[in-house]
Amino acid sequence: MSVITFICAGQMASAITFPAMENGHEVRLVGSPLDREIIDGLKKDNFHITLKRTLHDGIKYYQIEELEEALEGADAALCGVSSFGLDWFCDEILPVIPESVPLLSVTKGMVDLDDGTLVPYPVIFEERQPEGKNLDINAIGGPCTSYELADHDHSHVAFCGKNMETLKMFKDLLATDYYHITLSKDVVGVECAVAMKNAYALGVTLAVGLSEKMEGKIGIQHYNSQAALFGQSVKEMTKLLQLIGGGPENIVHGAGDLYVTVFGGRTRKIGTLLGRGLSFDEAMEELQGVTLESIVIATRTARAVRKLADRGVVSLDEFPLLMHVDSIINEGAEVNIPWDDFTMIKE
Amino acid sequence: MSVITFICAGQMASAITFPAMENGHEVRLVGSPLDREIIDGLKKDNFHITLKRTLHDGIKYYQIEELEEALEGADAALCGVSSFGLDWFCDEILPVIPESVPLLSVTKGMVDLDDGTLVPYPVIFEERQPEGKNLDINAIGGPCTSYELADHDHSHVAFCGKNMETLKMFKDLLATDYYHITLSKDVVGVECAVAMKNAYALGVTLAVGLSEKMEGKIGIQHYNSQAALFGQSVKEMTKLLQLIGGGPENIVHGAGDLYVTVFGGRTRKIGTLLGRGLSFDEAMEELQGVTLESIVIATRTARAVRKLADRGVVSLDEFPLLMHVDSIINEGAEVNIPWDDFTMIKE
Repeated sequence: MSVITFICAGQMASAITFPAMENGHEVRLVGSPLDREIIDGLKKDNFHITLKRTLHDGIKYYQIEELEEALEGADAALCGVSSFGLDWFCDEILPVIPESVPLLSVTKGMVDLDDGTLVPYPVIFEERQPEGKNLDINAIGGPCTSYELADHDHSHVAFCGKNMETLKMFKDLLATDYYHITLSKDVVGVECAVAMKNAYALGVTLAVGLSEKMEGKIGIQHYNSQAALFGQSVKEMTKLLQLIGGGPENIVHGAGDLYVTVFGGRTRKIGTLLGRGLSFDEAMEELQGVTLESIVIATRTARAVRKLADRGVVSLDEFPLLMHVDSIINEGAEVNIPWDDFTMIKE
Repeated sequence: MSVITFICAGQMASAITFPAMENGHEVRLVGSPLDREIIDGLKKDNFHITLKRTLHDGIKYYQIEELEEALEGADAALCGVSSFGLDWFCDEILPVIPESVPLLSVTKGMVDLDDGTLVPYPVIFEERQPEGKNLDINAIGGPCTSYELADHDHSHVAFCGKNMETLKMFKDLLATDYYHITLSKDVVGVECAVAMKNAYALGVTLAVGLSEKMEGKIGIQHYNSQAALFGQSVKEMTKLLQLIGGGPENIVHGAGDLYVTVFGGRTRKIGTLLGRGLSFDEAMEELQGVTLESIVIATRTARAVRKLADRGVVSLDEFPLLMHVDSIINEGAEVNIPWDDFTMIKE
């Protein structure tokens, strides 16, 4: 039995309390400042108001002010901050986590630097921890939606980090007969592959809306066009992975994660609305209040690729889908898939 | 305007008459011995009884006895024989096609040789043409279901062959604003990538039936497990592609084609039935009368991989999903996904 402190009580972190509790650990779930109502609800009856599932009995719940108490004697910490809480987490939380507590982050994302370099969150965490501090920072990638994990659907994810011993420890803590875990030391490869898929899932789901528009009926699905965009996404993601310096085998995590993202949640919704012909502003209005990591990641990735193209490292022609998604989001362009830019001649 | 003779009037070949007719060509559609009723129906009112679509007015229809007449003056031929008609096509049809008529094959498949080599159909056609004959044989790969092509959904496919000039000619004949065509000289890469997906689509769709079984309700879908199997499929397909000698970039066609195959047709049906707990024999009984390329290709690919493993070229551990699918089909094994064989440690 180990003590695991979960920092942030969003859907994904909270879903991981299922394998953690079923493996017999002491689970302490700490809400972020934005999770106050979630924690209040959980304290009442274990029901998680955004995950919409009842968590296991026995979890200890904490508000953010009680974080230090929740970290006392912890063997490991799991962090599920959203992309939008990145600064808060780096400035307020990283200083508080003891070096003796290895960290596993479930947040998928990348930040683009001025020279076009894309850096995944675990690397950002390392760089932004207080000077001289040496936290053991690890991360989870791969296809896994929180609802289905909570429902015990089989899920296969990758834990990545610098130290194989820590990764094995985390796998021992959390692996169950439905939560399957691959270990990898290629942090950049795993995390970039699974971060990019958010941008491309938006691209693939444009076809969902486009066929509804073509057929004049919501709910009608065509798969040829989705598959064409899926294939193009895998092609561009493979190229990006190469640019970023991740191993090409990580496309496996990226493709799986793209698959699951296409079929669920907010990214599919925005892609579908845009495909139906709504402008980006209209689509965002329909989705008011939801945080859209896909928009953030598409913007950052496109910005990075443009900078790399300016530097002559890459040609924009190799990323027609990413560029189109970016132009829809950031330049008010209409959806008009650049199909002919996808075709190529390979002698 | 060119004259294109379509040999075999199955769903896929017949769907390609849409771009061909819309590009203004003379289209001659010749039924195989198994397509007699299809041709009879088309002659009556242009309605294709298995594609369930009305073809364009003006197509000329022929029964197989009229093949030579249909080939007179043809500029190109398109062949849509099913896997099960391979011998017939090689023995009866290849001798009749003039060398001056380049051939484009839509049949996806591979044959395994005694030493474990997997050979795609266009290569088989080349080898089995009459001695001394030198047909210009090309093929189509990539995600494209016939119904959706007939409905003008955007589709992106690859035409592959040895001669770029012929490929460009075929692209000129058939490309439209919805039928998008990439050209490639990597015949083995393209064709093997898209043939393998049939086996793996069966593997992915096991999860469809498994979640229905888990939830006790047909139609309930979980995507984490599908995505895990999808990722594993991409991993194994990438390895197979490498073994077979196809360029790794062809995984783009394989992944796109896997995506579209997971969402439609008979392969999804058999995978789902097996996932629900039916034995292979029971599942086949439910699907009586349908031809299942996925079964053929899974069996052939697994047999080839076993032979390669016997020869020490590869380890069976690298193909746990393929081996499981094969054991379900050919050894009466129950569905029991080898999840833990998918996880790995990558130092």
